Amino acid sequence: MSKWVFEFGDGAAEGRADMRELLGGKGANLAEMCLLGLPVPPGFTITTEVCTYYYQNGRSYPDDLAKQIDAALAGIETKVADMKFGDAKAPLLVSVRSGARASMPGMMDTVLNLGLNDETVEGLAALSANPRFAYDSYRRFIQMYSNVVLGVEHYNFEEILDLHKEERNVQLDTELDADALKNLVVAYKARVEDAIGAPFPQDPREQLWGAIGAVFGSWMTPRAVTYRRLHGIPEDWGTAVNVQAMVFGNMGDDCATGVAFTRDPSTGENAFYGEYLVNAQGEDVVAGIRTPQHLTVAGKDANGSELPAMEEVMPDVFTQLCDIRGRLETHYRDMQDVEFTVQNGKLWMLQTRNGKRTTQAALRIAVDMAESGLIDRSTAVGRIEPQALDQLLHPALDPNAERIVIATGLPASPGAASGKAVFTADEAEAEAAKGERVILVRTETSPEDIHGMHAAQGILTTRGGMTSHAAVVARGMGRACVAGAGDIQVDEKTRTMKVGGRTIKDGEWITVDGAAGEVMLGEVPTVKPELSGDFATLMEWADVARTMGVRANADTPEDARTARDFGAEGIGLCRTEHMFFEAERIVAMREMILADNEAGRRAALDKILPMQREDFTEIFKIMRGLPVTIRLLDPPLHEFLPRGAQEMQEVADAAGVDIDTVRRRATELHEANPMLGHRGCRLAISYPEICEMQARAIFEAAVAVEKETGEGPICEVMVPLIAVQEELEILKKIIDRVADEVAAETGRRPAYMVGTMIELPRACLRAAEIAEQAEFFSYGTNDLTQTTFGLSRDDAGSFLQYYEKQGILEHDPFTSIDVDGVGELVSIATERGRRTRPDIKLGICGEHGGDPASVAFCNKIGLDYVSCSPFRVPIARLAAAQAAIAGDDGDVVRIAREA
Amino acid sequence: MSKWVFEFGDGAAEGRADMRELLGGKGANLAEMCLLGLPVPPGFTITTEVCTYYYQNGRSYPDDLAKQIDAALAGIETKVADMKFGDAKAPLLVSVRSGARASMPGMMDTVLNLGLNDETVEGLAALSANPRFAYDSYRRFIQMYSNVVLGVEHYNFEEILDLHKEERNVQLDTELDADALKNLVVAYKARVEDAIGAPFPQDPREQLWGAIGAVFGSWMTPRAVTYRRLHGIPEDWGTAVNVQAMVFGNMGDDCATGVAFTRDPSTGENAFYGEYLVNAQGEDVVAGIRTPQHLTVAGKDANGSELPAMEEVMPDVFTQLCDIRGRLETHYRDMQDVEFTVQNGKLWMLQTRNGKRTTQAALRIAVDMAESGLIDRSTAVGRIEPQALDQLLHPALDPNAERIVIATGLPASPGAASGKAVFTADEAEAEAAKGERVILVRTETSPEDIHGMHAAQGILTTRGGMTSHAAVVARGMGRACVAGAGDIQVDEKTRTMKVGGRTIKDGEWITVDGAAGEVMLGEVPTVKPELSGDFATLMEWADVARTMGVRANADTPEDARTARDFGAEGIGLCRTEHMFFEAERIVAMREMILADNEAGRRAALDKILPMQREDFTEIFKIMRGLPVTIRLLDPPLHEFLPRGAQEMQEVADAAGVDIDTVRRRATELHEANPMLGHRGCRLAISYPEICEMQARAIFEAAVAVEKETGEGPICEVMVPLIAVQEELEILKKIIDRVADEVAAETGRRPAYMVGTMIELPRACLRAAEIAEQAEFFSYGTNDLTQTTFGLSRDDAGSFLQYYEKQGILEHDPFTSIDVDGVGELVSIATERGRRTRPDIKLGICGEHGGDPASVAFCNKIGLDYVSCSPFRVPIARLAAAQAAIAGDDGDVVRIAREA
Repeated sequence: MSKWVFEFGDGAAEGRADMRELLGGKGANLAEMCLLGLPVPPGFTITTEVCTYYYQNGRSYPDDLAKQIDAALAGIETKVADMKFGDAKAPLLVSVRSGARASMPGMMDTVLNLGLNDETVEGLAALSANPRFAYDSYRRFIQMYSNVVLGVEHYNFEEILDLHKEERNVQLDTELDADALKNLVVAYKARVEDAIGAPFPQDPREQLWGAIGAVFGSWMTPRAVTYRRLHGIPEDWGTAVNVQAMVFGNMGDDCATGVAFTRDPSTGENAFYGEYLVNAQGEDVVAGIRTPQHLTVAGKDANGSELPAMEEVMPDVFTQLCDIRGRLETHYRDMQDVEFTVQNGKLWMLQTRNGKRTTQAALRIAVDMAESGLIDRSTAVGRIEPQALDQLLHPALDPNAERIVIATGLPASPGAASGKAVFTADEAEAEAAKGERVILVRTETSPEDIHGMHAAQGILTTRGGMTSHAAVVARGMGRACVAGAGDIQVDEKTRTMKVGGRTIKDGEWITVDGAAGEVMLGEVPTVKPELSGDFATLMEWADVARTMGVRANADTPEDARTARDFGAEGIGLCRTEHMFFEAERIVAMREMILADNEAGRRAALDKILPMQREDFTEIFKIMRGLPVTIRLLDPPLHEFLPRGAQEMQEVADAAGVDIDTVRRRATELHEANPMLGHRGCRLAISYPEICEMQARAIFEAAVAVEKETGEGPICEVMVPLIAVQEELEILKKIIDRVADEVAAETGRRPAYMVGTMIELPRACLRAAEIAEQAEFFSYGTNDLTQTTFGLSRDDAGSFLQYYEKQGILEHDPFTSIDVDGVGELVSIATERGRRTRPDIKLGICGEHGGDPASVAFCNKIGLDYVSCSPFRVPIARLAAAQAAIAGDDGDVVRIAREA
Repeated sequence: MSKWVFEFGDGAAEGRADMRELLGGKGANLAEMCLLGLPVPPGFTITTEVCTYYYQNGRSYPDDLAKQIDAALAGIETKVADMKFGDAKAPLLVSVRSGARASMPGMMDTVLNLGLNDETVEGLAALSANPRFAYDSYRRFIQMYSNVVLGVEHYNFEEILDLHKEERNVQLDTELDADALKNLVVAYKARVEDAIGAPFPQDPREQLWGAIGAVFGSWMTPRAVTYRRLHGIPEDWGTAVNVQAMVFGNMGDDCATGVAFTRDPSTGENAFYGEYLVNAQGEDVVAGIRTPQHLTVAGKDANGSELPAMEEVMPDVFTQLCDIRGRLETHYRDMQDVEFTVQNGKLWMLQTRNGKRTTQAALRIAVDMAESGLIDRSTAVGRIEPQALDQLLHPALDPNAERIVIATGLPASPGAASGKAVFTADEAEAEAAKGERVILVRTETSPEDIHGMHAAQGILTTRGGMTSHAAVVARGMGRACVAGAGDIQVDEKTRTMKVGGRTIKDGEWITVDGAAGEVMLGEVPTVKPELSGDFATLMEWADVARTMGVRANADTPEDARTARDFGAEGIGLCRTEHMFFEAERIVAMREMILADNEAGRRAALDKILPMQREDFTEIFKIMRGLPVTIRLLDPPLHEFLPRGAQEMQEVADAAGVDIDTVRRRATELHEANPMLGHRGCRLAISYPEICEMQARAIFEAAVAVEKETGEGPICEVMVPLIAVQEELEILKKIIDRVADEVAAETGRRPAYMVGTMIELPRACLRAAEIAEQAEFFSYGTNDLTQTTFGLSRDDAGSFLQYYEKQGILEHDPFTSIDVDGVGELVSIATERGRRTRPDIKLGICGEHGGDPASVAFCNKIGLDYVSCSPFRVPIARLAAAQAAIAGDDGDVVRIAREA
């Protein structure tokens, strides 16, 4: 015989906190509180296994369930001593609540006061000597039960209630007396009978089974199913049902109800924090009709409340509560969020669970608890959601400031910023040079806008997704960005933007909140992040715990400095193409593209060489002693050519050719699918002189820095977009030759490795061969995701909305790595690459390097490091630490956190 | 002790024909001819293992090689009885030839007359009583040896020879007498000494070792290395060296040299075919100075030659040769290509090998030999290169016609066609409607040009590769196409094309040869293919042998008919988007795209439904009883929108909206990488009503055909571009629902399956899940190649040239499947798909379905069928048969054919 029902109450329980899978979170904690000897109204939990059975057997119950429930009901009656379920004189009432492992919207929540009927209500009235209380409880029960169990919509009851209030000429429900409520009950029951074609059930046992069935039934509502799919919660987890004796906080002035946090959930301060209401039921707190009072005098004073604190009103109960606070924290070793009720001066605990908190509070609580010895440092590290750090590292809107939101888009890069709206990159740069703060507004950005994005405080685009050019670059630079705000229409010609009938001109102030994806009118004040000592302390502990390295993607000295400040241990991706877009360079670059032979290209490259060497010199100085992965030129050449006729003419003039030549070359270079075109190592295969120049710039800079400072960087020359081993073989030879030449010329041999970015499915499959040439692999999971899914991240924005709506994708694969598809390719490449070269260095440098779930994946397959935007380095450090602590269970981090 | 040297001669041999790996093709066949008792000059073969040893041991020889060579030389001397190598009086001369398993350009070919020096030349003069012959042989030897062994370039000797001829005032080499040649030898030797700083080697043994070393050395010349890489020949195969006693066809009028084929290599007729020259050496035939004579009287008569046939001149030798012809064919069971020399009336055989032949000849020979019982039918099937059938199935240029080639491009679709040059699809259609033949000339084609391509006889583009839109569509339609003729500049505005200073206007006649990739001026006459009975017979045998099905990719009734004529067993890919481009439909299609809500889209789709149903009805009638795989709408919607302002206005007018709406929608739909954008099943996920309409058209048509003819098709509804199982799950539900509706409405249930095109790496990896929904997979290896390589076939043309030059890719992965990368993904999907659903139907419908090597791959991994262009169906049938016959060795088909 299976045990389907677990009883608790009176300082004893058949369950425990660690039986969460079987009893759900709520049931397990109720049992645990009983075992701790806390005052918990007696009750029982019907296990999640019943839910599973229910669905595996055509919505029917196990044969022996009814007997077990009867026994458990009898158990409650024994514990409450003088009341019986359904007894006309002394009726026992119960609450019925769902309790899954993870709380889930769409599930039935609560039915209170179950057991009331036309007979027992009289008993309750007599017993409490309070007919108004009894009939108020009955009418609430009818409404709640009819709604969640019988499917009669709320409005039916609201209508009747309004009518009654009108008749009696009163405003508030509380002004209705017992007689009025009695009449209301009659009307309610009539409406229910009308709606369902049967009278409202009077048999308490029928009521109980109805409520149990409603909880199990709600497990499969579309909303619950979709939620589970989106959050990866397995269907067979099921939900438990908790049935518990009612206690009443609304029987008089020696009654109360409240909620409390064992520490301050917004600051993390070690102070008791909570609110209560005298003579009220839980739902009154939620309804917001009455102003809740503070638990403590300190809380009351801090908030300038005039209402008395519980500490003053019910000092005995308060002392008891304080004692419970300490016992729960010591026991659960985490900040708790509790619910309680006081009935006729007696305290009852109704729930405890880990409390939600702000990131700042989470840091403080974790550090405090670890320093007081309550938890160890690993546990403290595990208590912070890495993603949540993001909000700490950027300026945020002043929470007290007023704001007029004019549009919303995607929260593409966190931080809040205000500035004058400008509509071209050049203007952004010009205004910034004058000391103005600007927000660059574009339909979408392209590599040509980089200088303007750099000059701006924030970026706003009307197209593109979370991984559009604007979003990726903004995150890399740490600029606030709202992307894809589709309601805004940008007119570059008139330098205006239109939204909701409003026109905003060049120079008008706007504010973007990249964390919320909001665009606001005017300047909204922001507050600077204060990285408290707790942050630093916790990151230190994280660094001790983690085994993977964390590097940053950084293309400029400024990025490199930010990266080191945030704790990066090297550069995992230094893109060289951004270097080509700056003023003088783009001229030379275009000369190279327009040259029709190798000699012409070499002449142009000779001009670029010293500039590129300078870029590297700066970065290498900042990163000396550390590895710097430099990716050779990657984008297709047409990205460097101008688009408009006027700019084409300028380029023609500068290069001394006619505009037709420029136009012809642009046409020649045009590609249907540039993502899959003439880019990456394909450029170097076609024009080896580009690779030569870049290798020379790298090695000369490395040698120069070593000569100057006594310490050079460890250069990792990365060849992008390898599909075939021979590509790397040919280019490695060139790079090695240039290294030999530089060594011969300078008398020093730069420290370097040659490796490749693994970003094509074929490269993953042929990793064993490629590793014969490559000393390191860096997984370029952005492009790998694009090719594996056949999905352009620039274009996906237009239809991924339909995918999200239908729950087809659990998450955006550009944000968090697609473990099943892209992940398998990365695993294959890792295994095959190591088979050829056991000490091959493996890292990841896609956007995923800063995503905690992806970092956990990287840790699981044993990568050496992850690399991400400078601003995400702390997130990656923390995520890597948590992954290391979780060990092989790292892949359930995402799910566990939901629970 | 290893055996490094194998002797042959005098009716005996240590080797055999099946020792090709060890002795190379030439050596093995020389041995075999000896064993057959044919007259072969004695000699020996140094094995390929020596070559391998040579490279594995720093270019040194095995210790015991010299001893074995000395013994073998002595063996020759024994067999020729009265001559000795290096003997001043009776010098034995030898030839030294390379002989790999597969003949290879870049390898050293031949050194003749080796053993001659200042002393032995006199002996030869005396022995032959022909000093001119002796000195001529010596000067030829010096030149040949110096060139191939010592690296002295030919021009050195040509210079001296010209000088001598000038001095003597003669025109031809043959006019130089013995004295002149003697002087020439002196001058030659001086020039050699000058060039290499040492005298020309006089020691015959040194000469011999020099020549052997030159053969082995030539195995690693860059040209040979590249050739091997391109043809997949392993480096460790090595080459053999053949050393053989010289016989002379140039010692007098009872001497001759010649080549013969045992059957006619151009028609395959069972007639002896060959040419000879009296008193000549082999190289004279090649030099083309003298006109060769026919072997047979019949040959002489047929060619209107006045020179006597060997049958007449040397009847005895001819009879002997005829006897050998019969014996060789009976023995080798294939048509042989032999070389022979007659020295003083005695016939010597110098080589036999399988003869090259035209496809028509190959068919005839294979069928004749099988019918005469010489070979079995499987062998006959294996004798035809499937690819070669292509030339049989299309019209070809009259080989006797004159032609002025004005440009060359890629041979994108076989067949030759003439017509008036037209520059737009509309014009092509208009002219064709008037009965004109036209060639459509475009920079590149797009789906909007389909109607024009259909109306044209041939297509010429100046951009794009072998798998560009033009090429793919032309092959599918069986239209001749030359693609990527980069020298031509098309000006659509003035309706002209320019090439090499010539301007061709609208309406001028041009001819394209899609098999050769040539563009010609004017009309060049063509000849129709005659598919003789041999073709039909052989294809019948192939169908018996093969185990895989062969279907065709067909979008129109015309294609479907062609496909059945060529033996297709169903349609493996019916693309529906081409149906949307025709006149009325595109209007409705555009209406749908411009609609801004579902109702608007449905209204437009309602107009398309009956037209689409009609398309399917026609095709289903042709294919009744057979499977037809219909792919739901695949291309991104912007492909259907107009590009120019005028056309936009027309569309706006037709749809009753303003042009700004059209322009805005076009901008909204614009994509950076359409290949990776909003297409395939993503359209149906966004707009399920499109999927509904198409499913309805399919099912209604299927039911109608079944009602009309008593037999419907087996509809395979194919959902394209699945990346995630849920996509298919959602769309399958819609398709199943529509099927139910049609069944309810019509009273008949259409026979159908739902499956997917596997064309993304992720789909391959997740095939196990996808197969839960899919009843069939069709591998779309075009797109799978694009995503696996990250390579756009439209854009690859611009840089793949650099890849070919450097030998990075063995073959174009869009032409022949990349077994290592794409192939592994297909294997993974096959294995995982079958694990979930053992009876899942598996096929391939990319361009690869018509490529023999790819067909062999499909057979190896056990696919159920391949599908290809109608015109390639016979190729696929033959390739499938060969793959089935080859069994598990199928993957070496490509290499073996080279050998």
